[in-house]
Amino acid sequence: MNLESYLAEQRGVVEAALERALIPSEGTPPRLLEAMRYAVFSGGKRVRPILAMAACAATPAPAARALPFGCAIELIHAYSLVHDDLPAMDDDDLRRGRPTVHKVYGEALAILAGDALLTEAFRVAAEGARAVGIDPVRAIEMIGSIARAAGAGGMVGGQVADLAAEGVAADASLVESIHRRKTGALIAAAVEAGATAGGVAGARRDALLAYGQSLGLAFQVADDILDATAPTAVTGKRVGGDAAHGKATYPSVVGLDGARHVARELLARCRAATDALGAAAEPLRALATFVVERAC
Amino acid sequence: MNLESYLAEQRGVVEAALERALIPSEGTPPRLLEAMRYAVFSGGKRVRPILAMAACAATPAPAARALPFGCAIELIHAYSLVHDDLPAMDDDDLRRGRPTVHKVYGEALAILAGDALLTEAFRVAAEGARAVGIDPVRAIEMIGSIARAAGAGGMVGGQVADLAAEGVAADASLVESIHRRKTGALIAAAVEAGATAGGVAGARRDALLAYGQSLGLAFQVADDILDATAPTAVTGKRVGGDAAHGKATYPSVVGLDGARHVARELLARCRAATDALGAAAEPLRALATFVVERAC
Repeated sequence: MNLESYLAEQRGVVEAALERALIPSEGTPPRLLEAMRYAVFSGGKRVRPILAMAACAATPAPAARALPFGCAIELIHAYSLVHDDLPAMDDDDLRRGRPTVHKVYGEALAILAGDALLTEAFRVAAEGARAVGIDPVRAIEMIGSIARAAGAGGMVGGQVADLAAEGVAADASLVESIHRRKTGALIAAAVEAGATAGGVAGARRDALLAYGQSLGLAFQVADDILDATAPTAVTGKRVGGDAAHGKATYPSVVGLDGARHVARELLARCRAATDALGAAAEPLRALATFVVERAC
Repeated sequence: MNLESYLAEQRGVVEAALERALIPSEGTPPRLLEAMRYAVFSGGKRVRPILAMAACAATPAPAARALPFGCAIELIHAYSLVHDDLPAMDDDDLRRGRPTVHKVYGEALAILAGDALLTEAFRVAAEGARAVGIDPVRAIEMIGSIARAAGAGGMVGGQVADLAAEGVAADASLVESIHRRKTGALIAAAVEAGATAGGVAGARRDALLAYGQSLGLAFQVADDILDATAPTAVTGKRVGGDAAHGKATYPSVVGLDGARHVARELLARCRAATDALGAAAEPLRALATFVVERAC
């Protein structure tokens, strides 16, 4: 398959859905909406909603059934970047080559825009569930699963552990534990949302979930490698920013070659899972390959 | 009815449910959970979950059916206080007579504990929906309604408008618009959650929603009056803190007597709504009377 044209097409679908999710509404201060939109429409690759749709496409259901849940996850991802960049957290001025939200709108509005994006994510999931006609029991299951992935035992917990590990001697198991929560959980939730929206059970569901778990970790390992090696033009961030922050990363605990080895192992697991799913999982396979190979 | 013993009993039910919602779980850093619990177990009156149950008790359904949604709203309320107190926002050192979360745990953890509480709120709603055996279509409706009340067009929008109005010449209609979003929306959502969990439609639902709208505004008007007049021992905050911040409040735009008049008018509307609901709405009526009369 041609991954590039597939991604461009799916990204168009996601952008249109996010546009519909972030329109002016009664009671929303225009400057708040502007800050939320600045955070969301910033050239992101939309990996999470595309994964949700690709996972759903590997079931008998149409891919679009997973779209509202993928968009909810993308809004959660966007809020997490806004809050991570705050002066009290990673204190970053630059994100995807542009000034961060608090640099443009001030700290107060950045905190509130993040809060609003996180809240609206659940509105989008709840309203979308009705719009795509999904079984409401499954929709509630998905909302719970997204909240667990994003919450205290998932993404937020990973960010707390990440901040606590700064400048501390970390080992590979601590780094894996941080990455699985901070990045992996939300990516795995996107794939799971696709599986749940598609209504598959048994071995096919298990294969999708295994893929999501491995890809979620692979994604962050690849990000670590790129942070340590790629120029700002590729990452939109300072080269070696993680090292400057004393961040716990795979290259810092197992070296660059070790990190590449881990990424390739995870890619092999993603491929094994997609092999079990057959031709309908081709986009999932191509996505995993792309994520890992650009860093290796 | 004896409001004091009713409130004590209901508060016990809510505290137990919040305890169950905030227990250690895999992946949750202990210090994050500690900060979340510090924010939630701080002597709050639990008005919102009690309202949700009281509204549900005015329907044929048992009050407990609204409990998970009331708890979700209480967690959202708790997160909003943590973020409102941050240095970049209201910069408050004291809340309910104790140091604020960022004073005890630092700014980064305060931001993240707030984020986690907001996220876990939706987990509690989704998991609770199944536990209380509520119709899943209604549960999704409630999750959407809670998100709208808490989001960009509701509570967060109100906080943005509140910050923008600091030191600006405000009028009564701007203050009403801020209060309806910043405080009123979540209180109204609690009452609506009770009505929806109870499954009432038509005139009884309309009366409950009208009650929630009026009470939500009355609650903040009373809070404005208490802030301007009551000692720290009652409010747990500095006397006249709103005036010191140049906040847009009812006393600042219509004077203390004017604010008391508005509060009494709103109480009359709450009473008219509960009259239409009969004896089962007695707790709602007593709650509204208590909220307004302690400030008037």
